Amino acid sequence: MSAWVLPDYIADVLPSEARHIEEIRRNLLDMARSYGYELVMPPLLEHLESLLSGTGEALDLQTFKLVDQLSGRMMGLRADTTPQVARIDAHLLNRQGVARLCYCGPVLHTRPSGPHATREPLQFGAELFGHRGLEADLEVLTLALDALKVTQVQGIQVDLADARIIEALLKLGDFDTEHQALILAALAGKDVSELSSLTAKSPALVSTSLKHLVQLYGDSNVLAQARKALPNVAQITEALDHLDWLARHVDGARTSFDLADLRGYAYYSGARFSMFAPGASDALVRGGRYDEVGSVFGRKRPAVGFSLDVKALVAVAPPRPLRAAIRAPWSEALDVRAAIAQLRRQGETVVCVLPGHESEIDEFNCDRELVLKGAQWTVTTI
Amino acid sequence: MSAWVLPDYIADVLPSEARHIEEIRRNLLDMARSYGYELVMPPLLEHLESLLSGTGEALDLQTFKLVDQLSGRMMGLRADTTPQVARIDAHLLNRQGVARLCYCGPVLHTRPSGPHATREPLQFGAELFGHRGLEADLEVLTLALDALKVTQVQGIQVDLADARIIEALLKLGDFDTEHQALILAALAGKDVSELSSLTAKSPALVSTSLKHLVQLYGDSNVLAQARKALPNVAQITEALDHLDWLARHVDGARTSFDLADLRGYAYYSGARFSMFAPGASDALVRGGRYDEVGSVFGRKRPAVGFSLDVKALVAVAPPRPLRAAIRAPWSEALDVRAAIAQLRRQGETVVCVLPGHESEIDEFNCDRELVLKGAQWTVTTI
Repeated sequence: MSAWVLPDYIADVLPSEARHIEEIRRNLLDMARSYGYELVMPPLLEHLESLLSGTGEALDLQTFKLVDQLSGRMMGLRADTTPQVARIDAHLLNRQGVARLCYCGPVLHTRPSGPHATREPLQFGAELFGHRGLEADLEVLTLALDALKVTQVQGIQVDLADARIIEALLKLGDFDTEHQALILAALAGKDVSELSSLTAKSPALVSTSLKHLVQLYGDSNVLAQARKALPNVAQITEALDHLDWLARHVDGARTSFDLADLRGYAYYSGARFSMFAPGASDALVRGGRYDEVGSVFGRKRPAVGFSLDVKALVAVAPPRPLRAAIRAPWSEALDVRAAIAQLRRQGETVVCVLPGHESEIDEFNCDRELVLKGAQWTVTTI
Repeated sequence: MSAWVLPDYIADVLPSEARHIEEIRRNLLDMARSYGYELVMPPLLEHLESLLSGTGEALDLQTFKLVDQLSGRMMGLRADTTPQVARIDAHLLNRQGVARLCYCGPVLHTRPSGPHATREPLQFGAELFGHRGLEADLEVLTLALDALKVTQVQGIQVDLADARIIEALLKLGDFDTEHQALILAALAGKDVSELSSLTAKSPALVSTSLKHLVQLYGDSNVLAQARKALPNVAQITEALDHLDWLARHVDGARTSFDLADLRGYAYYSGARFSMFAPGASDALVRGGRYDEVGSVFGRKRPAVGFSLDVKALVAVAPPRPLRAAIRAPWSEALDVRAAIAQLRRQGETVVCVLPGHESEIDEFNCDRELVLKGAQWTVTTI
């Protein structure tokens, strides 16, 4: 096999796309900063038990494992950054009050999460720790929405769900762990007949509620339907109230509900959201409340956050105009070098034509040229 | 062991340092762009033979290896980005003329390169392909110098060397591969007595030249000494002429020579440089000509480039002032939300004080506050 062939679902990012990714990366980090989210950079490699504690089996299977030559211990390459940021909040910062953190860096997956997915997403995300109220959920959701908008993605739709609804139904059904996993898989596949057979011996309320859940998808009528169809227990009522409040506060995007939504991370513990846009085969953003993740690091802190793959986002964001460059001759003369340095300080791209390469086609889209006019080096249109 | 303990030589980057790294990262990429270097993003993972072809044993030992679950083949985590960029130039872009490329992303090392090194440097670099003349060497060296200067690192020193000098001496000595490796190790350790015994059976010229090399360190007098002390063969004379030309063209930094320098990558084939600054235990920048690396990908292209670790650079760069933020009350009222959104669009950081957290200490250094004055929300100094 040729030395230049890359592994499946792994790709080089070439100049025009790389420039777009870098611009959007900066927009996203600047947006998070304008909300007061401080940047952190957790490592790519960690001990496996730090990386995977309480994060679920799916993330374990997605995580590349390595042996540390220095210690002989197992390490993992992060497949998700959120648990690392929860670790930083719980242990390193150890603040009593609210902490707002954001990050942007690669994650690696052993297998692609879908037929068009990369195994090396560039994950951007923001996390808010220390506030139990819905104001935190709304802030994170609003930031995620503003982050999408700054990329000029059009037609954004926000889907809301709440992890407590399914959790309450599973509790009512008193299923064992293995049985729970089967029910979750059937819910994820929206497989009503499988749900019927899995809950054949359960109380009728649990069985019909779980089957109902699959249909509880759509606009704000879904909440009214859910209040009728689902058991009247405190956890479910509170979840529906929270979703109602959140939906009423979302500004500038269509909102709908998908109460059986289980995609994304297993650690969500409350309201959760996904954001979609035309042209994207999967959700562009996933986020929500995950109050328990930090507990393995010694602190149970309320937590809400979201993440997205910058590469997937750039694939549906409209391209940006390329600022054209200036050609300049190569010269040892101090005046030419000074003129070039001055243009570069002004933010221009100046490409020096190296001796012997005068007839080459510009790869960099030069629309102007540095030429000598009289005794003065001047920029003119080509 | 506790879940929050990280592997040795692996660390989280916390907010104040992360912000500095991000600012310098942008400065470096913008500087490369102003020179006409296009950004590329090679993957973290590649098939091992692509990553390690022709790059030497040292890089092999530094590279983490993984099995690809999809193909069963061995993959490596990149320990250096330059060979990947050479692959992109040779195979993907396949341009006839000059190509200028830059990159910035993490690399991973199985072992730290020094007692204070990280195993996860953030590598920034730039590569110029397709020009054999010294103008390319000078452009890359100048870009590296400007990149250091933009971080406001003071007291930069440029060390010049040339891979052809040692190569010519080894050729004259007609040593076998194993013997060569021992001589290179003795040169790297500047171990003259070991060099004596290793070259005891070699021609006197080779033996004394190799021992001389260790002393050929210092200012421009070194070149005159080298011309006297080293054999008068074309390869060495050309190398010394090139170093002389380069040194005369370097602007704005002290220049010295270290003709036995062997540190850094094994793939250099011509003039090479290192840049040092007070406070850094090792070179901040290494670069040089490496004309043969692309050949494994089917194209022998002239190539010059440099790379640096942004984390090491930030450790010696003077810190930058933090722009202070604005505190704002949390509110559902549309006028407050509009005032906050407007400030954020203007580039301000606005931290919302979530209900119940009013008495917490600001972690974000807020020096102003959004308050209601009359009917108007106004920013006032705290």
